[in-house]
Amino acid sequence: MSKNLTSRAEDYSKWYNELVVKADLAENSAVRGCMVIKPYGYAIWEKMQAELDRMFKETGHQNAYFPLFVPKSLFEAEEKNAEGFAKECAVVTHYRLQTDPDNEGKLRVDPEAKLEEELVVRPTSEAIIWNTYKGWIQSYRDLPILVNQWANVVRWEMRTRLFLRTAEFLWQEGHTAHATKDEAWEETKLINNVYAKFAENFMAIPVIQGLKTESERFAGAEETMCIEALMQDGKALQAGTSHFLGQNFAKAFDVKFTNKEGKQDYVWATSWGVSTRLMGALIMTHSDDKGLVLPPNLAPYQVVIVPIYKNEEQFDAVKKVADEIIDDLKERNISVKFDKRDTLRPGAKFAQHELQGVPIRIAIGPKDLEDNTVEVARRDTFTKETVILDRINVVVEDLLEEIQKSLFKKALDFRNSHITEVEDFEEFKKVLENKTGFISAHWDGTAETEQKIKELTKATIRCIPLDSKKEEGECVFTGNPSNQRVLFAKAY
Amino acid sequence: MSKNLTSRAEDYSKWYNELVVKADLAENSAVRGCMVIKPYGYAIWEKMQAELDRMFKETGHQNAYFPLFVPKSLFEAEEKNAEGFAKECAVVTHYRLQTDPDNEGKLRVDPEAKLEEELVVRPTSEAIIWNTYKGWIQSYRDLPILVNQWANVVRWEMRTRLFLRTAEFLWQEGHTAHATKDEAWEETKLINNVYAKFAENFMAIPVIQGLKTESERFAGAEETMCIEALMQDGKALQAGTSHFLGQNFAKAFDVKFTNKEGKQDYVWATSWGVSTRLMGALIMTHSDDKGLVLPPNLAPYQVVIVPIYKNEEQFDAVKKVADEIIDDLKERNISVKFDKRDTLRPGAKFAQHELQGVPIRIAIGPKDLEDNTVEVARRDTFTKETVILDRINVVVEDLLEEIQKSLFKKALDFRNSHITEVEDFEEFKKVLENKTGFISAHWDGTAETEQKIKELTKATIRCIPLDSKKEEGECVFTGNPSNQRVLFAKAY
Repeated sequence: MSKNLTSRAEDYSKWYNELVVKADLAENSAVRGCMVIKPYGYAIWEKMQAELDRMFKETGHQNAYFPLFVPKSLFEAEEKNAEGFAKECAVVTHYRLQTDPDNEGKLRVDPEAKLEEELVVRPTSEAIIWNTYKGWIQSYRDLPILVNQWANVVRWEMRTRLFLRTAEFLWQEGHTAHATKDEAWEETKLINNVYAKFAENFMAIPVIQGLKTESERFAGAEETMCIEALMQDGKALQAGTSHFLGQNFAKAFDVKFTNKEGKQDYVWATSWGVSTRLMGALIMTHSDDKGLVLPPNLAPYQVVIVPIYKNEEQFDAVKKVADEIIDDLKERNISVKFDKRDTLRPGAKFAQHELQGVPIRIAIGPKDLEDNTVEVARRDTFTKETVILDRINVVVEDLLEEIQKSLFKKALDFRNSHITEVEDFEEFKKVLENKTGFISAHWDGTAETEQKIKELTKATIRCIPLDSKKEEGECVFTGNPSNQRVLFAKAY
Repeated sequence: MSKNLTSRAEDYSKWYNELVVKADLAENSAVRGCMVIKPYGYAIWEKMQAELDRMFKETGHQNAYFPLFVPKSLFEAEEKNAEGFAKECAVVTHYRLQTDPDNEGKLRVDPEAKLEEELVVRPTSEAIIWNTYKGWIQSYRDLPILVNQWANVVRWEMRTRLFLRTAEFLWQEGHTAHATKDEAWEETKLINNVYAKFAENFMAIPVIQGLKTESERFAGAEETMCIEALMQDGKALQAGTSHFLGQNFAKAFDVKFTNKEGKQDYVWATSWGVSTRLMGALIMTHSDDKGLVLPPNLAPYQVVIVPIYKNEEQFDAVKKVADEIIDDLKERNISVKFDKRDTLRPGAKFAQHELQGVPIRIAIGPKDLEDNTVEVARRDTFTKETVILDRINVVVEDLLEEIQKSLFKKALDFRNSHITEVEDFEEFKKVLENKTGFISAHWDGTAETEQKIKELTKATIRCIPLDSKKEEGECVFTGNPSNQRVLFAKAY
């Protein structure tokens, strides 16, 4: 393992790229824009999945699985959605390879195995799912349908970055069908709340809930709700979206139902998703120049025990104590790893666990055995304390809770101190130059203004916050009247 | 829901197809050969995943994720593997659609967005993974690598059937790297044992462990171990495979390591997988003419409570008792569903739960309330008993265990009574005509004989059983000497 990370101050982007690779989270693959998620990174994703899945099921959702491929004719059925994704999709045109007669031993596409209709590798599954729902829905009795799927999707992005923007990524996509507009709206909000709770309680990432403007909306949606987070470099990151689709997909796929009054109506829809992008948000919210910092709720293992010893006898004595601690912690549902590798010295192990963000490190050496103590070190603050062996369970349990809370509070303080109310455009540009996060400003509500601000500053409207109070004002760019502040930022 | 299933005796294949759809497990999609796994079917698959994942982790494996696409040049690097899969793969050739100028509003492949190198949608991931492992392995210290991935794969099958053979399917694929041949062999056997245990203890499916013959082996493997199950119609089903890959992939991708003696050597490999095909095996092992029969360990809910009532007051009284039962059962980790739908009569509910294979049904009506009893019905045997309310927890808990064991025993008895030792080829053909399952016969060990038998009878060698005792004999087809019996059968 090479020694030092580039510091965040030096080059934030380089720091991020190095950290993802050095902490063994992910790496680029032989396929342009596609990543390999390594076991340590995948273990974090699995914890996210488990918790989200639990929350979805608790709110009445079930999982299902729909095809990877979308026939072109279905793909183009909802016009806006098709337009939105056509420019960045992988297309299957053939179903066989054959030995190339001009290039022995090599394979080429078999020209005779051309598909009659091209298949799009799903960039999102509304089309294939609504085509399926058509067969599931006849009456209001068949509603609501509350289905989620965990899947891979492909968007042919030209500039990719590990976790943040990759051609293939993993996500969950919920697709629900409802008898009424109100119910579909409630679902849209319910899920955005689930996402916000998950981000705050599990990822320790404070988020702002809001609505997207028309130009930032999901292609095919009538409204898009989102949770927006702020990264350490002052850029925003959209961490999850929940779309109210109105009757657009039901109309595109002719999905009608008989309502309680016996009349035919189109079904109301929502869709919602979070992806492996959340890994990027997690990293850029908490980590530091020494490496990854993980909230205990998502750490693959929350505690690592490093034995300090000079000979086998010492190792055995340390291991005996470690085993007892491990048993005790496991009983409290705390995950522990005993790092018994004999190919690395303790210092190198310390550095690796620091780089990989293990929340708590316990070191046990011969001196500790004599004193009946162990050394407990906290990753997020680098503080160490000597703990009496008898109290180790309680101390570790409390400390994990304390770390989880403290990471959230730190991120919240940072975020709150990086929202600047701005009244004129010069100030707007200055705040952006200083990378100081969200700008809360009045906007005249037009797509033109939004577009011009984006062209001039690269800042976009991240959301119209749900909790923003009504307030008369003037648009920061045009001076036209406005009655609400929106949040601008540069974004990932 | 349409009433009756075709009976198994009438048309086994039709019975299967109808059952999958009517029990709400899966259906065909708009994409040729690709299925939609519906929530009830997916819930069973999730239970399989959870248990297998637990078993993999318990034996030291970690999950990771590798790209969906395999560049053609990597795909063809291991010759046999490439040949084996080239004829049935989906190929991505373009990365964009555009509006067709000759067909307004419709999309077509953008001819300018042609990929320089075609991408194969993974039919299996050895190639992309071994290309990745090359970067992970330098020394024996980096070994073993024990990685699994849960993923979708695509094989362009021409004749597809829900779960049994679909173009896209879900599976797990383990890919391990080892310093020695012995270790790789141990891993191959370990996993085959995991699969056998899982099949028997969770799916209640008895399996025979064995080795595949050369012609039935995985393309690129040196040996393939398998678990073979017998379906009710006398056909065999390969339920899982574990491959010893030797150094084939390490050589194809130049993956060398420095061993403990400081010398360079190629890495030893295994790969292994089970897929949604297991759903087919589950259905065809236990189900009957009334529908699905599920082992309690895999049922989405193990118990369903159906209230019998004529008015709201009765419903409330029944519900009160049901709620108490639910609480008690949940405490014992028994999953229960209270079927309170007011759109269906009890009889229709009974029929649906029978069709969907819920192991235990509890019915509660006004008469039961008076007597302090409930009616408990068992799906697999159709037996009913009246149970005193106080004893319901114990009765249900014991009954679930009893059903799980009884399903296994029934399947085991069936399987054991459907293995026929055969000494000559006329008898061989007669046994096959009567659909009586496995044929245990001597074989001269040549691919020619195997091929001829296959051509004449459609039966293949399912495996050379691990526990088959050495025994001198004569090949059932050629009369040439043989020292071991192998298992023949027609197969799914």
